Amino acid sequence: MDRMEREAQDFFMDSGLDTEGKRLLVACSGGPDSIALLHFMAARGPALGLQIGCAHVDHMLRGEESAEDARFVRAACADLGVPFHGTAIPVGDLVREQGGNVQDVCRSERYRFFERVMESDGYDLLATAHHADDLLETVLMKLARGTSEPAPGIPPVRTFGPGLLLRPLLMAGRPDIMDYVAANNLAFRTDPSNAKPAYTRNRFRHRIVPLLLEENREAARHFAAWDMERREDDELLRRLAEEHAGSFSERLPEGGAAVDTAKFSGMPSALQRRFIPILLDYLYRPGPPPSNRRLAALIRSELLKAEGSGAVDLPDGWVLERTYARAVFRRHAPREPQGGTESIPFPKDSWVQAGNGLRLYWSECGTAPRIRAGGGTEVLYFDEGPAFPPAGIKVPEEGDRLLLPNMESPKRVSRIFIDEKIPRHRRADWPLVTGRDGRIIAVPGIRYGAGFTRDADAGCRYIFIVENAAGAVHAQEDSK
Amino acid sequence: MDRMEREAQDFFMDSGLDTEGKRLLVACSGGPDSIALLHFMAARGPALGLQIGCAHVDHMLRGEESAEDARFVRAACADLGVPFHGTAIPVGDLVREQGGNVQDVCRSERYRFFERVMESDGYDLLATAHHADDLLETVLMKLARGTSEPAPGIPPVRTFGPGLLLRPLLMAGRPDIMDYVAANNLAFRTDPSNAKPAYTRNRFRHRIVPLLLEENREAARHFAAWDMERREDDELLRRLAEEHAGSFSERLPEGGAAVDTAKFSGMPSALQRRFIPILLDYLYRPGPPPSNRRLAALIRSELLKAEGSGAVDLPDGWVLERTYARAVFRRHAPREPQGGTESIPFPKDSWVQAGNGLRLYWSECGTAPRIRAGGGTEVLYFDEGPAFPPAGIKVPEEGDRLLLPNMESPKRVSRIFIDEKIPRHRRADWPLVTGRDGRIIAVPGIRYGAGFTRDADAGCRYIFIVENAAGAVHAQEDSK
Repeated sequence: MDRMEREAQDFFMDSGLDTEGKRLLVACSGGPDSIALLHFMAARGPALGLQIGCAHVDHMLRGEESAEDARFVRAACADLGVPFHGTAIPVGDLVREQGGNVQDVCRSERYRFFERVMESDGYDLLATAHHADDLLETVLMKLARGTSEPAPGIPPVRTFGPGLLLRPLLMAGRPDIMDYVAANNLAFRTDPSNAKPAYTRNRFRHRIVPLLLEENREAARHFAAWDMERREDDELLRRLAEEHAGSFSERLPEGGAAVDTAKFSGMPSALQRRFIPILLDYLYRPGPPPSNRRLAALIRSELLKAEGSGAVDLPDGWVLERTYARAVFRRHAPREPQGGTESIPFPKDSWVQAGNGLRLYWSECGTAPRIRAGGGTEVLYFDEGPAFPPAGIKVPEEGDRLLLPNMESPKRVSRIFIDEKIPRHRRADWPLVTGRDGRIIAVPGIRYGAGFTRDADAGCRYIFIVENAAGAVHAQEDSK
Repeated sequence: MDRMEREAQDFFMDSGLDTEGKRLLVACSGGPDSIALLHFMAARGPALGLQIGCAHVDHMLRGEESAEDARFVRAACADLGVPFHGTAIPVGDLVREQGGNVQDVCRSERYRFFERVMESDGYDLLATAHHADDLLETVLMKLARGTSEPAPGIPPVRTFGPGLLLRPLLMAGRPDIMDYVAANNLAFRTDPSNAKPAYTRNRFRHRIVPLLLEENREAARHFAAWDMERREDDELLRRLAEEHAGSFSERLPEGGAAVDTAKFSGMPSALQRRFIPILLDYLYRPGPPPSNRRLAALIRSELLKAEGSGAVDLPDGWVLERTYARAVFRRHAPREPQGGTESIPFPKDSWVQAGNGLRLYWSECGTAPRIRAGGGTEVLYFDEGPAFPPAGIKVPEEGDRLLLPNMESPKRVSRIFIDEKIPRHRRADWPLVTGRDGRIIAVPGIRYGAGFTRDADAGCRYIFIVENAAGAVHAQEDSK
């Protein structure tokens, strides 16, 4: 048995999954990794009591070539006697209509299809061909960008759709998979977009990872093994944080929660850090909780104080109010969308407090107020133009679009919210900045339109400031 | 206050160290990082109640240039009113006499001097100028090579000599330090050996790290912050493993320990992994415990069984014997060094069992036995020559030397043990392989002399096998 097979076997042994009588859908692009996974699952699945199926999505981005990929996977399934579920999704059209990043739209549409197939055809498990080299790239990307995830790699098992998503090849390296492909004489297709340096992941894949593998050809497997151990550490620590939460915090009968900050301060840092997401998850249920490092650090720093009093505004009307060692998380009355879809004026030299905790300001450079250091303050610059200076602020409505820098057509604001992973319940009163001609020029805190620059040396006449002292920065940076 | 100062201030705030009335020795090479640290500590130390001193080691490797470094640091200390402790150590001569890696010898001699100064002059603390970029390099090097350290970076505080070793600049990046150097108009010296690509660290520094910083210029600080959180995780988990150890293990009155493997199996993996080093530390006290991943995995896998029986030989005469769910760690009678310094014969085609758990074998290629997969088996090849084939096996004695590949003069075996971090108590009966002419040709399991190759395709006539089924692999790979 070669190394990929051994690792994939071990995956099912070690995961402790009950596979007997389950149905497993293999996500297959036609590339070598997923062809190897499909072949392995078709061969070994029955011994695990698994019924295997295969799903393929043609994103219709490479014309006849990607249609041929679909036919290729269908034929491979026929050879292996595996049911095939295919679809074609016009990602190009979707992006033209709704805007968005092509890769992001491909991914979200693809997984949506897998979920639909699982539901319609009774699959319990989805398997993807992510391997140790993918994990190495992911770890490096996340650590370079900054992350608070203790295990920044790829989880071997996670919940997905009606069941679980599995990565049976996660401990195998790319060379192990190519060995399997060669040993089993498997044909596969290649996607030329995997080489585009414009994609961050491809830059890591082609520029950085090869140097690490040159230093140690087992580097990918070493990263994977190490990430797996951190995942075990984190699971235990999260469980402990949950178990301890009751000793220093309580749910309030009127909703919300209270924390004894003196007791909280006595907990190990590793548990303090893990308590914040547990608390936010409880407060924001059933919606997704805000999750970003700066907000978490703000909350934790307030919970470490026991003298005087303090307050932190949280997204979506929640507030943390502390008096000595008692910190209470409670919710203001939910905010109604105000003033319909009319813009309110956004005059020069005046701070405007927006619905979601942002404060906005614009002025001529040089006359602007001192910018508070650190925190969530963003500073941009602009010159006069057809849409500049800003004139108003409005709430989002269907059909709103924003022209982003270096894009030819404006992108739907609703798509921007999706791509930036803004929770649905936070979108309704997000302030949009409109320009002189009424068009939207910024979704502040998230994306800024053509005409803005972050370059202080660009010589622009005007400055635009978005202050985020309440920590109400958006959720994207930490989301998975 | 600039960023380096803020980070260094925060270091003393956050570390919770009691600095009042303490004496702190700054390790200073004269380079920008340690000159910045020296300047910062001289300026801010008094406010922390610290008395500052400075230590410099001239390794005498760059003649007048490195002597000038020493004069330069001495002058900087005079300017700052800081006591100067300098020494010159002829590292070149030491390496010529005793062999060894120049960088390793520099480091061990340097830290030995720092320790002596701390002891003779009553310093409580040593501070080095390691910063976030150093930490980033270290994390990448260790993860690529494979590590079981949960926080593979650089500890901000650790015990050293009579007190503690501190890294106050660990959360500052190299650019932050250069900003401080520029803002304070500090002169510094540069060491050209920092650019040599032959050193692994320099390859990471010059080839890989710049690409990560190109992706995110805060990458070094992100790695450092993340490593610090993992260090907190690990501290808590190690404490928990210690606390739980009593519930499934006991010290035996006759020495050694017993483990209830059924209870051990019920513990979270994160604690199981951390229990093994705690146990070994107890067994091997006061000496350093063996620490390598393969041995730890072997022990853990035996402790996860509760059926039948099994045994694992551990280094230095310890053995793990398991019957059903009871595993006992006990020690055989200590082995006397046998047969003085005479060689025992090492014939062709015979397995020889050596004192430290290794089994050795040589034969013609093709006639050799099947090599057991995995584990600690090493395979080498050789041809006939003045010293080949091997003829005998002996124990180490003073003056033993081994000619390593690509080295001009033979290296002292005692130095090899030091450089490879073999614990002192394991050196006495380590088998040395002697050749036809009586010279030592291998320290099996550790280093192999000129004439051996690991290349199976080199067309050699003979094969040499070192089998390590007992897990008695040496301690180097995981040591810090």
